[in-house]
Amino acid sequence: MRYAVLGTGSVGRTLAGKLATLGHEVAVGTRDPSATLARTGTDAYGNAPYAEWQAAHPAVALVTFAEAAAGADAVVNASSGAASLDVLAAAGAANLAGKPLVDVANPLDFSHGTPPSLDPVNTDSLAEQIQRAFPAAKVVKTLNTTNAAVMVDPARVPGPHSVFVSGDDADAKKAVTALLESFGWPPESVIDLGGIATARGTEMLLPVWLRLYGVIGHPDFNFHIARA
Amino acid sequence: MRYAVLGTGSVGRTLAGKLATLGHEVAVGTRDPSATLARTGTDAYGNAPYAEWQAAHPAVALVTFAEAAAGADAVVNASSGAASLDVLAAAGAANLAGKPLVDVANPLDFSHGTPPSLDPVNTDSLAEQIQRAFPAAKVVKTLNTTNAAVMVDPARVPGPHSVFVSGDDADAKKAVTALLESFGWPPESVIDLGGIATARGTEMLLPVWLRLYGVIGHPDFNFHIARA
Repeated sequence: MRYAVLGTGSVGRTLAGKLATLGHEVAVGTRDPSATLARTGTDAYGNAPYAEWQAAHPAVALVTFAEAAAGADAVVNASSGAASLDVLAAAGAANLAGKPLVDVANPLDFSHGTPPSLDPVNTDSLAEQIQRAFPAAKVVKTLNTTNAAVMVDPARVPGPHSVFVSGDDADAKKAVTALLESFGWPPESVIDLGGIATARGTEMLLPVWLRLYGVIGHPDFNFHIARA
Repeated sequence: MRYAVLGTGSVGRTLAGKLATLGHEVAVGTRDPSATLARTGTDAYGNAPYAEWQAAHPAVALVTFAEAAAGADAVVNASSGAASLDVLAAAGAANLAGKPLVDVANPLDFSHGTPPSLDPVNTDSLAEQIQRAFPAAKVVKTLNTTNAAVMVDPARVPGPHSVFVSGDDADAKKAVTALLESFGWPPESVIDLGGIATARGTEMLLPVWLRLYGVIGHPDFNFHIARA
Protein backbone atom coordinates (compact mmCIF):
# COMPACT_ATOMS: atom_id res chain seq x y z
CA MET A 1 0.00 0.00 0.00
CA ARG A 2 1.04 3.61 -0.56
CA TYR A 3 0.54 5.72 2.55
CA ALA A 4 0.66 9.48 3.00
CA VAL A 5 1.41 10.58 6.54
CA LEU A 6 0.56 14.25 7.03
CA GLY A 7 2.64 15.73 9.82
CA THR A 8 6.33 15.64 10.71
CA GLY A 9 6.05 15.55 14.51
CA SER A 10 6.65 12.52 16.70
CA VAL A 11 3.30 10.94 15.83
CA GLY A 12 3.86 11.31 12.09
CA ARG A 13 7.42 10.03 12.33
CA THR A 14 6.42 7.05 14.45
CA LEU A 15 3.62 6.03 12.11
CA ALA A 16 5.65 6.63 8.96
CA GLY A 17 8.56 4.62 10.33
CA LYS A 18 6.32 1.70 11.27
CA LEU A 19 4.51 1.71 7.92
CA ALA A 20 7.85 1.65 6.09
CA THR A 21 9.06 -1.21 8.29
CA LEU A 22 5.94 -3.12 7.31
CA GLY A 23 6.90 -2.77 3.64
CA HIS A 24 4.53 0.01 2.64
CA GLU A 25 5.55 2.86 0.36
CA VAL A 26 5.42 5.93 2.60
CA ALA A 27 5.48 9.64 1.84
CA VAL A 28 5.44 12.12 4.71
CA GLY A 29 3.66 15.33 3.84
CA THR A 30 4.71 18.75 5.07
CA ARG A 31 3.97 22.34 4.03
CA ASP A 32 7.45 23.05 2.68
CA PRO A 33 9.83 20.07 2.49
CA SER A 34 12.96 22.18 2.15
CA ALA A 35 12.00 24.27 5.20
CA THR A 36 11.28 21.10 7.19
CA LEU A 37 14.69 19.67 6.26
CA ALA A 38 16.46 22.97 6.96
CA ARG A 39 15.30 23.14 10.57
CA THR A 40 17.97 22.53 13.20
CA GLY A 41 17.61 22.04 16.93
CA THR A 42 14.75 20.32 18.69
CA ASP A 43 11.19 21.54 18.15
CA ALA A 44 8.73 22.78 20.81
CA TYR A 45 7.98 19.15 21.78
CA GLY A 46 11.62 18.12 22.08
CA ASN A 47 11.76 16.24 18.78
CA ALA A 48 15.14 16.06 17.06
CA PRO A 49 15.40 17.89 13.71
CA TYR A 50 13.45 16.12 10.96
CA ALA A 51 16.59 15.88 8.82
CA GLU A 52 18.10 13.57 11.45
CA TRP A 53 15.06 11.32 11.38
CA GLN A 54 15.06 11.45 7.57
CA ALA A 55 18.67 10.31 7.43
CA ALA A 56 17.76 7.27 9.52
CA HIS A 57 14.70 6.53 7.34
CA PRO A 58 15.89 7.01 3.76
CA ALA A 59 13.01 4.98 2.30
CA VAL A 60 10.44 7.49 3.54
CA ALA A 61 9.86 10.35 1.10
CA LEU A 62 9.30 13.92 2.28
CA VAL A 63 7.03 15.87 -0.08
CA THR A 64 4.29 18.48 0.09
CA PHE A 65 0.93 17.62 1.67
CA ALA A 66 -0.65 17.57 -1.81
CA GLU A 67 2.04 15.39 -3.37
CA ALA A 68 1.86 12.94 -0.50
CA ALA A 69 -1.93 12.65 -0.66
CA ALA A 70 -2.04 12.50 -4.46
CA GLY A 71 0.24 9.48 -4.58
CA ALA A 72 -1.36 7.56 -1.73
CA ASP A 73 -3.94 4.81 -1.42
CA ALA A 74 -4.65 5.90 2.16
CA VAL A 75 -3.88 9.05 4.12
CA VAL A 76 -3.00 9.42 7.81
CA ASN A 77 -3.74 12.74 9.52
CA ALA A 78 -0.94 13.05 12.06
CA SER A 79 -0.95 16.83 12.17
CA SER A 80 -1.80 18.74 15.33
CA GLY A 81 -5.56 18.98 15.78
CA ALA A 82 -5.64 22.77 15.58
CA ALA A 83 -3.91 22.63 12.16
CA SER A 84 -5.64 19.54 10.74
CA LEU A 85 -8.33 21.23 8.64
CA ASP A 86 -5.74 23.54 7.05
CA VAL A 87 -3.34 20.67 6.46
CA LEU A 88 -6.04 18.60 4.79
CA ALA A 89 -7.11 21.55 2.66
CA ALA A 90 -3.49 21.87 1.54
CA ALA A 91 -3.49 18.14 0.78
CA GLY A 92 -6.46 18.78 -1.46
CA ALA A 93 -10.00 17.41 -1.36
CA ALA A 94 -9.53 15.67 -4.71
CA ASN A 95 -6.45 13.88 -3.40
CA LEU A 96 -8.41 12.60 -0.38
CA ALA A 97 -11.56 11.57 -2.26
CA GLY A 98 -12.48 7.91 -2.04
CA LYS A 99 -9.54 7.07 0.23
CA PRO A 100 -9.41 5.95 3.85
CA LEU A 101 -8.36 8.97 5.91
CA VAL A 102 -7.01 7.72 9.22
CA ASP A 103 -7.44 10.55 11.73
CA VAL A 104 -5.26 10.11 14.80
CA ALA A 105 -5.26 13.80 15.83
CA ASN A 106 -6.80 15.40 18.89
CA PRO A 107 -8.23 18.92 18.89
CA LEU A 108 -6.15 20.15 21.80
CA ASP A 109 -6.74 23.78 22.70
CA PHE A 110 -3.98 25.44 24.72
CA SER A 111 -5.69 28.84 24.84
CA HIS A 112 -6.97 28.12 28.36
CA GLY A 113 -3.51 27.03 29.55
CA THR A 114 -2.44 23.53 30.49
CA PRO A 115 -3.69 20.89 30.64
CA PRO A 116 -5.22 21.76 27.27
CA SER A 117 -8.95 21.52 26.74
CA LEU A 118 -10.67 20.37 23.54
CA ASP A 119 -12.05 22.45 20.67
CA PRO A 120 -14.42 21.26 19.31
CA VAL A 121 -15.84 19.16 22.11
CA ASN A 122 -19.04 17.57 23.35
CA THR A 123 -21.49 18.20 20.48
CA ASP A 124 -18.90 17.98 17.72
CA SER A 125 -15.47 16.46 17.12
CA LEU A 126 -12.45 17.04 14.94
CA ALA A 127 -13.22 13.80 13.11
CA GLU A 128 -16.69 15.05 12.21
CA GLN A 129 -15.31 18.45 11.15
CA ILE A 130 -12.91 16.64 8.83
CA GLN A 131 -15.63 14.37 7.44
CA ARG A 132 -17.89 17.38 6.80
CA ALA A 133 -15.10 19.38 5.15
CA PHE A 134 -14.03 16.42 2.97
CA PRO A 135 -17.23 14.43 2.36
CA ALA A 136 -15.64 12.18 -0.27
CA ALA A 137 -12.89 11.04 2.12
CA LYS A 138 -13.55 7.95 4.22
CA VAL A 139 -12.59 9.25 7.64
CA VAL A 140 -11.76 6.69 10.31
CA LYS A 141 -10.89 7.97 13.78
CA THR A 142 -8.53 5.70 15.65
CA LEU A 143 -5.34 5.52 17.73
CA ASN A 144 -5.87 9.03 19.16
CA THR A 145 -6.25 7.59 22.67
CA THR A 146 -2.69 6.29 23.01
CA ASN A 147 0.83 7.62 22.89
CA ALA A 148 2.56 7.34 19.49
CA ALA A 149 4.95 4.62 20.65
CA VAL A 150 2.01 2.51 21.87
CA MET A 151 0.10 3.09 18.62
CA VAL A 152 2.62 1.06 16.63
CA ASP A 153 3.80 -1.26 19.43
CA PRO A 154 0.86 -2.07 21.71
CA ALA A 155 2.93 -4.71 23.51
CA ARG A 156 4.70 -1.84 25.33
CA VAL A 157 1.66 -1.95 27.62
CA PRO A 158 1.23 -5.38 29.22
CA GLY A 159 -2.05 -7.26 29.29
CA PRO A 160 -5.11 -6.63 27.18
CA HIS A 161 -6.00 -3.06 26.26
CA SER A 162 -8.21 -1.37 23.71
CA VAL A 163 -8.13 0.71 20.56
CA PHE A 164 -11.26 2.38 19.22
CA VAL A 165 -12.47 2.81 15.65
CA SER A 166 -15.14 5.28 14.50
CA GLY A 167 -16.23 5.90 10.94
CA ASP A 168 -19.12 5.97 8.53
CA ASP A 169 -17.55 3.75 5.85
CA ALA A 170 -17.53 0.04 6.69
CA ASP A 171 -14.86 -0.88 4.14
CA ALA A 172 -12.53 1.87 5.34
CA LYS A 173 -12.98 0.69 8.94
CA LYS A 174 -12.19 -2.84 7.82
CA ALA A 175 -9.00 -1.66 6.09
CA VAL A 176 -7.98 0.39 9.13
CA THR A 177 -8.66 -2.54 11.43
CA ALA A 178 -6.35 -4.69 9.30
CA LEU A 179 -3.74 -1.94 9.58
CA LEU A 180 -4.12 -1.92 13.37
CA GLU A 181 -3.64 -5.68 13.43
CA SER A 182 -0.46 -5.28 11.37
CA PHE A 183 0.75 -2.86 14.06
CA GLY A 184 0.29 -5.63 16.64
CA TRP A 185 -3.19 -4.90 17.99
CA PRO A 186 -4.98 -8.21 18.62
CA PRO A 187 -8.34 -8.38 16.80
CA GLU A 188 -10.19 -8.57 20.13
CA SER A 189 -8.62 -5.28 21.26
CA VAL A 190 -10.26 -3.31 18.43
CA ILE A 191 -13.61 -1.80 19.45
CA ASP A 192 -15.77 -0.48 16.62
CA LEU A 193 -17.89 2.24 18.23
CA GLY A 194 -19.96 2.96 15.12
CA GLY A 195 -20.21 6.07 12.97
CA ILE A 196 -17.82 9.01 12.87
CA ALA A 197 -19.86 10.92 15.49
CA THR A 198 -18.72 8.38 18.09
CA ALA A 199 -15.30 10.05 17.80
CA ARG A 200 -16.74 12.62 20.21
CA GLY A 201 -16.38 9.96 22.88
CA THR A 202 -12.82 8.96 22.09
CA GLU A 203 -11.57 12.53 21.61
CA MET A 204 -13.04 13.28 25.05
CA LEU A 205 -10.75 10.62 26.54
CA LEU A 206 -7.81 12.98 26.12
CA PRO A 207 -8.41 15.08 29.24
CA VAL A 208 -8.24 12.04 31.52
CA TRP A 209 -5.36 10.59 29.47
CA LEU A 210 -3.36 13.77 30.09
CA ARG A 211 -4.08 13.65 33.82
CA LEU A 212 -3.19 9.95 33.98
CA TYR A 213 0.09 10.77 32.25
CA GLY A 214 0.76 13.19 35.08
CA VAL A 215 -0.03 10.58 37.74
CA ILE A 216 1.68 7.59 36.08
CA GLY A 217 4.71 9.59 34.95
CA HIS A 218 5.23 7.88 31.58
CA PRO A 219 3.08 7.34 28.48
CA ASP A 220 3.19 3.53 28.35
CA PHE A 221 -0.40 3.06 29.51
CA ASN A 222 -3.73 2.67 27.79
CA PHE A 223 -7.44 2.31 28.33
CA HIS A 224 -8.75 -1.22 28.48
CA ILE A 225 -12.46 -1.89 28.45
CA ALA A 226 -12.94 -4.71 30.93
CA ARG A 227 -16.28 -6.43 30.47
CA ALA A 228 -18.39 -9.29 31.75
CA MET B 1 -20.79 5.99 59.96
CA ARG B 2 -23.94 7.95 59.23
CA TYR B 3 -24.44 8.48 55.48
CA ALA B 4 -26.86 10.72 53.65
CA VAL B 5 -27.60 9.61 50.09
CA LEU B 6 -29.21 12.41 48.11
CA GLY B 7 -31.32 10.99 45.31
CA THR B 8 -33.91 8.23 45.07
CA GLY B 9 -33.08 6.87 41.59
CA SER B 10 -31.29 3.64 40.87
CA VAL B 11 -27.87 5.06 41.78
CA GLY B 12 -29.10 6.39 45.14
CA ARG B 13 -30.92 3.16 45.93
CA THR B 14 -27.95 1.00 45.00
CA LEU B 15 -25.52 3.01 47.11
CA ALA B 16 -27.93 3.34 50.05
CA GLY B 17 -28.63 -0.39 50.02
CA LYS B 18 -24.94 -1.27 49.94
CA LEU B 19 -24.09 1.19 52.73
CA ALA B 20 -26.85 -0.26 54.91
CA THR B 21 -25.62 -3.80 54.19
CA LEU B 22 -22.17 -2.70 55.37
CA GLY B 23 -23.68 -1.65 58.71
CA HIS B 24 -23.81 2.09 58.19
CA GLU B 25 -26.72 4.24 59.32
CA VAL B 26 -28.26 5.49 56.07
CA ALA B 27 -30.78 8.21 55.35
CA VAL B 28 -31.90 8.77 51.78
CA GLY B 29 -32.73 12.41 51.06
CA THR B 30 -35.51 13.53 48.76
CA ARG B 31 -37.39 16.79 48.20
CA ASP B 32 -40.69 15.59 49.66
CA PRO B 33 -40.63 12.15 51.32
CA SER B 34 -44.40 11.70 51.30
CA ALA B 35 -44.53 12.52 47.59
CA THR B 36 -41.68 10.09 46.88
CA LEU B 37 -43.48 7.33 48.79
CA ALA B 38 -46.83 8.12 47.14
CA ARG B 39 -45.50 7.56 43.62
CA THR B 40 -46.74 4.45 41.85
CA GLY B 41 -45.61 2.92 38.59
CA THR B 42 -42.08 2.92 37.24
CA ASP B 43 -40.24 6.20 36.74
CA ALA B 44 -38.78 7.54 33.48
CA TYR B 45 -35.76 5.23 33.89
CA GLY B 46 -37.82 2.10 34.55
CA ASN B 47 -37.20 2.05 38.31
CA ALA B 48 -39.90 0.43 40.43
CA PRO B 49 -41.76 2.79 42.81
CA TYR B 50 -39.59 3.93 45.70
CA ALA B 51 -42.12 2.59 48.21
CA GLU B 52 -41.41 -0.93 46.95
CA TRP B 53 -37.66 -0.47 47.43
CA GLN B 54 -38.32 1.10 50.83
CA ALA B 55 -40.35 -1.92 51.94
CA ALA B 56 -37.41 -4.16 51.07
CA HIS B 57 -34.95 -1.86 52.91
CA PRO B 58 -36.71 -0.91 56.15
CA ALA B 59 -33.44 0.12 57.84
CA VAL B 60 -32.91 2.97 55.36
CA ALA B 61 -34.66 6.18 56.39
CA LEU B 62 -36.33 8.46 53.85
CA VAL B 63 -36.22 12.12 54.90
CA THR B 64 -35.76 15.55 53.34
CA PHE B 65 -32.45 16.50 51.73
CA ALA B 66 -31.72 18.81 54.68
CA GLU B 67 -32.62 16.25 57.34
CA ALA B 68 -30.50 13.62 55.64
CA ALA B 69 -27.47 15.90 55.36
CA ALA B 70 -27.87 17.35 58.87
CA GLY B 71 -27.68 13.92 60.47
CA ALA B 72 -24.80 12.56 58.39
CA ASP B 73 -21.06 12.26 58.78
CA ALA B 74 -20.69 12.05 55.01
CA VAL B 75 -22.98 12.90 52.11
CA VAL B 76 -23.34 11.16 48.75
CA ASN B 77 -24.63 13.17 45.80
CA ALA B 78 -26.57 10.62 43.77
CA SER B 79 -28.94 13.12 42.22
CA SER B 80 -29.05 13.69 38.48
CA GLY B 81 -26.31 16.08 37.42
CA ALA B 82 -28.68 18.73 36.11
CA ALA B 83 -30.40 18.85 39.53
CA SER B 84 -27.36 18.46 41.77
CA LEU B 85 -26.69 22.11 42.63
CA ASP B 86 -30.36 22.61 43.56
CA VAL B 87 -30.43 19.39 45.55
CA LEU B 88 -27.32 20.37 47.49
CA ALA B 89 -28.70 23.86 48.12
CA ALA B 90 -31.80 22.19 49.56
CA ALA B 91 -29.56 19.98 51.69
CA GLY B 92 -28.05 23.18 53.06
CA ALA B 93 -24.50 24.49 52.96
CA ALA B 94 -24.24 24.32 56.77
CA ASN B 95 -25.23 20.65 56.70
CA LEU B 96 -22.49 19.89 54.18
CA ALA B 97 -19.73 21.94 55.81
CA GLY B 98 -16.67 20.00 56.90
CA LYS B 99 -18.02 16.69 55.58
CA PRO B 100 -16.87 14.47 52.75
CA LEU B 101 -19.26 15.01 49.87
CA VAL B 102 -19.01 12.04 47.53
CA ASP B 103 -20.09 13.22 44.10
CA VAL B 104 -21.03 10.36 41.78
CA ALA B 105 -23.21 12.42 39.42
CA ASN B 106 -22.61 13.29 35.78
CA PRO B 107 -23.77 16.55 34.21
CA LEU B 108 -25.69 14.91 31.38
CA ASP B 109 -27.43 17.37 29.09
CA PHE B 110 -30.25 15.92 27.02
CA SER B 111 -31.12 19.25 25.34
CA HIS B 112 -29.19 18.23 22.21
CA GLY B 113 -30.91 14.81 22.06
CA THR B 114 -29.38 11.41 22.75
CA PRO B 115 -26.74 10.42 23.42
CA PRO B 116 -26.63 13.28 25.94
CA SER B 117 -23.73 15.70 25.97
CA LEU B 118 -22.16 17.27 29.07
CA ASP B 119 -22.85 20.65 30.67
CA PRO B 120 -20.51 21.89 32.02
CA VAL B 121 -17.68 20.31 30.07
CA ASN B 122 -14.07 20.81 29.08
CA THR B 123 -13.04 23.90 31.09
CA ASP B 124 -15.28 23.16 34.08
CA SER B 125 -16.98 20.20 35.72
CA LEU B 126 -19.97 19.49 37.91
CA ALA B 127 -17.61 18.53 40.72
CA GLU B 128 -15.91 21.93 40.55
CA GLN B 129 -19.26 23.72 40.39
CA ILE B 130 -20.28 21.89 43.56
CA GLN B 131 -16.98 22.64 45.29
CA ARG B 132 -17.27 26.35 44.38
CA ALA B 133 -20.90 26.52 45.52
CA PHE B 134 -20.16 24.72 48.81
CA PRO B 135 -16.59 25.66 49.67
CA ALA B 136 -16.74 24.18 53.17
CA ALA B 137 -17.74 20.74 51.84
CA LYS B 138 -14.97 18.29 51.02
CA VAL B 139 -16.00 17.22 47.55
CA VAL B 140 -14.60 13.95 46.23
CA LYS B 141 -15.54 12.91 42.71
CA THR B 142 -15.61 9.16 42.24
CA LEU B 143 -17.58 6.22 40.86
CA ASN B 144 -19.21 8.34 38.14
CA THR B 145 -17.48 6.26 35.45
CA THR B 146 -19.30 2.98 36.17
CA ASN B 147 -22.82 1.67 36.28
CA ALA B 148 -24.46 1.71 39.73
CA ALA B 149 -24.36 -2.08 40.09
CA VAL B 150 -20.61 -2.08 39.36
CA MET B 151 -20.04 0.78 41.82
CA VAL B 152 -20.93 -1.42 44.78
CA ASP B 153 -19.94 -4.80 43.30
CA PRO B 154 -16.87 -4.33 41.11
CA ALA B 155 -16.48 -8.11 40.80
CA ARG B 156 -19.37 -8.02 38.31
CA VAL B 157 -16.65 -7.05 35.81
CA PRO B 158 -13.91 -9.70 35.60
CA GLY B 159 -10.23 -8.89 35.82
CA PRO B 160 -8.62 -5.69 37.02
CA HIS B 161 -10.36 -2.39 36.35
CA SER B 162 -10.13 1.13 37.67
CA VAL B 163 -11.98 3.68 39.76
CA PHE B 164 -10.88 7.31 39.86
CA VAL B 165 -10.77 9.75 42.78
CA SER B 166 -10.51 13.55 42.46
CA GLY B 167 -10.61 16.03 45.32
CA ASP B 168 -8.83 18.86 47.06
CA ASP B 169 -9.00 17.42 50.59
CA ALA B 170 -6.53 14.61 51.24
CA ASP B 171 -8.35 13.28 54.33
CA ALA B 172 -11.68 13.16 52.52
CA LYS B 173 -10.07 11.27 49.64
CA LYS B 174 -8.57 8.84 52.14
CA ALA B 175 -11.98 8.25 53.71
CA VAL B 176 -13.61 7.79 50.33
CA THR B 177 -10.88 5.39 49.24
CA ALA B 178 -11.59 3.32 52.35
CA LEU B 179 -15.27 3.37 51.43
CA LEU B 180 -14.43 2.17 47.92
CA GLU B 181 -12.39 -0.67 49.38
CA SER B 182 -15.35 -1.63 51.57
CA PHE B 183 -17.41 -1.83 48.36
CA GLY B 184 -14.93 -4.38 47.03
CA TRP B 185 -12.54 -2.20 45.00
CA PRO B 186 -8.99 -3.51 45.45
CA PRO B 187 -6.60 -0.79 46.67
CA GLU B 188 -4.58 -1.02 43.45
CA SER B 189 -7.70 -0.26 41.38
CA VAL B 190 -8.13 3.19 42.94
CA ILE B 191 -6.41 5.94 40.92
CA ASP B 192 -6.04 9.29 42.68
CA LEU B 193 -5.92 11.82 39.85
CA GLY B 194 -5.30 14.83 42.09
CA GLY B 195 -7.41 17.90 42.81
CA ILE B 196 -11.10 18.37 42.11
CA ALA B 197 -10.38 19.93 38.69
CA THR B 198 -9.23 16.51 37.49
CA ALA B 199 -12.93 15.55 37.60
CA ARG B 200 -13.12 17.25 34.19
CA GLY B 201 -11.29 14.23 32.86
CA THR B 202 -13.48 11.59 34.47
CA GLU B 203 -16.77 13.35 33.71
CA MET B 204 -15.62 13.47 30.08
CA LEU B 205 -15.43 9.66 30.09
CA LEU B 206 -19.22 9.53 29.99
CA PRO B 207 -19.64 10.11 26.25
CA VAL B 208 -17.50 7.09 25.38
CA TRP B 209 -19.07 5.08 28.24
CA LEU B 210 -22.51 5.67 26.73
CA ARG B 211 -21.33 4.61 23.27
CA LEU B 212 -19.62 1.52 24.70
CA TYR B 213 -22.88 0.64 26.46
CA GLY B 214 -24.54 0.73 23.03
CA VAL B 215 -21.88 -1.53 21.51
CA ILE B 216 -21.51 -3.97 24.42
CA GLY B 217 -25.23 -4.14 25.14
CA HIS B 218 -25.04 -4.32 28.92
CA PRO B 219 -23.51 -2.09 31.63
CA ASP B 220 -21.19 -4.66 33.24
CA PHE B 221 -18.01 -3.16 31.85
CA ASN B 222 -15.51 -0.61 33.06
CA PHE B 223 -12.37 1.31 32.17
CA HIS B 224 -9.11 -0.27 33.21
CA ILE B 225 -5.89 1.66 32.95
CA ALA B 226 -3.35 -0.87 31.71
CA ARG B 227 0.20 0.30 32.29
CA ALA B 228 3.81 -0.76 31.93
